[in-house]
Amino acid sequence: MTDPRLDALRQAAPALRLKTDPADLEHYGRDWTRRWTPAPLAIALPGNVEEVQAVVRWANQQGVAIVPSGGRTGLSGGAVAANGELVLSLERMNQALAFDPVDRTLTVQAGMPLEAVHNGAREHGLQYPVDFAARGSCSIGGNIATNAGGIRVIRYGNTREWIAGLKVVAGTGDVLDLNRGLIKNSSGYDLRQLLIGSEGTLGIVVEATLRLTDPPPPSNVMLLALPSFEVLMQVFAAFRQRLQLEAFEFFTDVALKHVLAHGAQKPFDEIHPFYVVAEFASGDEATEAAAMAAFEHGMEQGWIVDGVISQSGAQAAQLWRLREGITESLARYKPYKNDVSVRISAMPAFLAETQQLLSEAYPHFEVVWFGHIGDGNLHINVLKPDDVADADFIAACEQVTKLLADCLRRHGGSISAEHGIGLVKKPYLGSTRSDAEVALMRGVKHVFDPNGVLNPGKLFDP
Amino acid sequence: MTDPRLDALRQAAPALRLKTDPADLEHYGRDWTRRWTPAPLAIALPGNVEEVQAVVRWANQQGVAIVPSGGRTGLSGGAVAANGELVLSLERMNQALAFDPVDRTLTVQAGMPLEAVHNGAREHGLQYPVDFAARGSCSIGGNIATNAGGIRVIRYGNTREWIAGLKVVAGTGDVLDLNRGLIKNSSGYDLRQLLIGSEGTLGIVVEATLRLTDPPPPSNVMLLALPSFEVLMQVFAAFRQRLQLEAFEFFTDVALKHVLAHGAQKPFDEIHPFYVVAEFASGDEATEAAAMAAFEHGMEQGWIVDGVISQSGAQAAQLWRLREGITESLARYKPYKNDVSVRISAMPAFLAETQQLLSEAYPHFEVVWFGHIGDGNLHINVLKPDDVADADFIAACEQVTKLLADCLRRHGGSISAEHGIGLVKKPYLGSTRSDAEVALMRGVKHVFDPNGVLNPGKLFDP
Repeated sequence: MTDPRLDALRQAAPALRLKTDPADLEHYGRDWTRRWTPAPLAIALPGNVEEVQAVVRWANQQGVAIVPSGGRTGLSGGAVAANGELVLSLERMNQALAFDPVDRTLTVQAGMPLEAVHNGAREHGLQYPVDFAARGSCSIGGNIATNAGGIRVIRYGNTREWIAGLKVVAGTGDVLDLNRGLIKNSSGYDLRQLLIGSEGTLGIVVEATLRLTDPPPPSNVMLLALPSFEVLMQVFAAFRQRLQLEAFEFFTDVALKHVLAHGAQKPFDEIHPFYVVAEFASGDEATEAAAMAAFEHGMEQGWIVDGVISQSGAQAAQLWRLREGITESLARYKPYKNDVSVRISAMPAFLAETQQLLSEAYPHFEVVWFGHIGDGNLHINVLKPDDVADADFIAACEQVTKLLADCLRRHGGSISAEHGIGLVKKPYLGSTRSDAEVALMRGVKHVFDPNGVLNPGKLFDP
Repeated sequence: MTDPRLDALRQAAPALRLKTDPADLEHYGRDWTRRWTPAPLAIALPGNVEEVQAVVRWANQQGVAIVPSGGRTGLSGGAVAANGELVLSLERMNQALAFDPVDRTLTVQAGMPLEAVHNGAREHGLQYPVDFAARGSCSIGGNIATNAGGIRVIRYGNTREWIAGLKVVAGTGDVLDLNRGLIKNSSGYDLRQLLIGSEGTLGIVVEATLRLTDPPPPSNVMLLALPSFEVLMQVFAAFRQRLQLEAFEFFTDVALKHVLAHGAQKPFDEIHPFYVVAEFASGDEATEAAAMAAFEHGMEQGWIVDGVISQSGAQAAQLWRLREGITESLARYKPYKNDVSVRISAMPAFLAETQQLLSEAYPHFEVVWFGHIGDGNLHINVLKPDDVADADFIAACEQVTKLLADCLRRHGGSISAEHGIGLVKKPYLGSTRSDAEVALMRGVKHVFDPNGVLNPGKLFDP
């Protein structure tokens, strides 16, 4: 006996691939948050835009909620299906559709993994520059749905900057072909921009036309050891002034400890409280001299206590692993994650206040800091001790997040820099967006999705 | 005897400056289109955000329409008040509010002229890179309302890229402080992006936090003479491949004739059918060699028939005048303006079709072409003969615009690249945006402006 709603779906889209096996329901019903028990109705795996449209129309008729699903690497619960929703996975729609050398654009289906996009651009001698550690698993559609940031934002901006065209199926069932790769188009509201970062609550991204750029310049990677948090912004300013930074990432001794335990190689004999991985365009003597000048200035000022510069691509990768391996090395501790941002200029005051707050609030939990300091983006990972129950741990962390949210409100920051709001940050949206903004967002949601079938309960309650 | 609605406004905002003098009504009621007879109720010149808010609340109570007003240099009638609207001019709110050297942002009031923004950035050793000929008269708020493009888009993008924060008074009367200068902020719909380019129909821009960048590199300007339209894209490709283009603009012999008649200096002895002004980063021998290589390649191929390169800043300005002086030189002919765009890759086919179309459709009118070829943006100016009545001329041009709109639809282009839709392009919006998109735009409009008080009749009919 099958669910009559699924029978209706099979009738509406006879060729649609559907999965209802318990293992599939579990696999497709969760994301990397792993906090909710997956309980979807079924998994739909459309093969084309028409099937996506048929699913959305069916959902409106039957009153079934849809959870759009990419690589499910999200950290805010945006792709969780725990309430009998239909998961609509884009994983079969993962092909490149067109490359245009004159426009320098690559048009892809939404399910294409970010890494495949990188490779596709490289095949044409160009670059798609948004990048982060989940590149192998996440999908470009999911990147667009959260306006993903990552490790190159300081140089190339967020996903938003690279979307020249967007094809979506709106909650109304309409297929929208937004902006179509135009550079200049002042013809009313830019709905493409509204869709980017909307977490699958307004429409389902089915295709995107990505702007590509020149391949990255030759670069060098430097690892710096810092004596304290307070000097971090000074080191950043000294390097930004002298070099074209491609990345500027920091992490703490605690983060390093976990990465080393996970197999990475120790960079210095001594342990230092703070580290920076800086990547900068290089390749000529002037740049190398500028990098040395920045380093020496930092040493003289006492802001930097040790450093190493990559002598090869292999060594650069080794240094990057110290930063990029953090998330994986923490996974077994089920970390509670904060992903917050403030203006760069507000960083020093915000950091001081946050450090104080967390050291008082989390006396028993290990806290791992890292982040994209040049974007004003801080990741705070709280590790669950083995002897504390999941629910108790999360409840304790949520108390601290309330305090952190107050702090963010005072500093004009954001409760979600790049992970999105989803389910996890929903209670704190008010720290970042005013009541009037949230009311307008709800109104916009109702316009795009009048029956509330797209990812209900994410971002805000229905 | 005054209008009771104005009495109510004076009561709601006692310090608000109001003008009702006929000369003021005419001055503030029109923009550069000069097609409609100004007939506003009155002109309000608020001095602060609170007064703007009071005006919007009053408009909602009294059912009076508001036309937000910047420099009124618009070419689509977006700032026209011809139906008893209250013009809300931002011209008194024209101050810089804050500069932050760490964030590299300049926060300004909406009424600040673009040129004052340029100067403000330069004072701090930085650059606000959006630029176009109306810089002295247009306001930054108006630039944001139309997502203004201009002559540097090829290098720096449109206004949208440079807006780190936006303070607006929505049609609901709410003050929204959007994004507040954050680099990363994934906390729900980016309403800032929705407001940019919304032509005053969703909210009134009152302040903006602008991202600044490094000052422009030293550059050279080249004027090229081309034998035909067909080679334009080849010349563009040859230069883009070899140089960092800061601008790449084209115009025709007819455009040149008008600029010369307006006092500019003749660049070559002979008259050629097409011209390009190319500006590129230079300052070292390698770049100069690359520029020469591009030029010589073009000569060898027969794509370029003559050329001159600036030897001084003064000569660069002289070459630029040939392009930037066009609009002014045409003003007395009351030109009917098209401002269209397609993907760069679609340019050749679109150009061929459009040339054919216009040569057939406009046998009696002089047509002046120029534009930003590197952005896929073409300006087509049709000049009114002195012996044809305004209304007849416009009616004839509208017939051709219908054909042009069909052509744009086929090529996936836009009926407004950078001027906005306003009143002038309203009948053709459907060539660029689907019915579903327009329906969603109307829905969004209703959310932000439920009583329809903000710039009604612009973009689409109420």
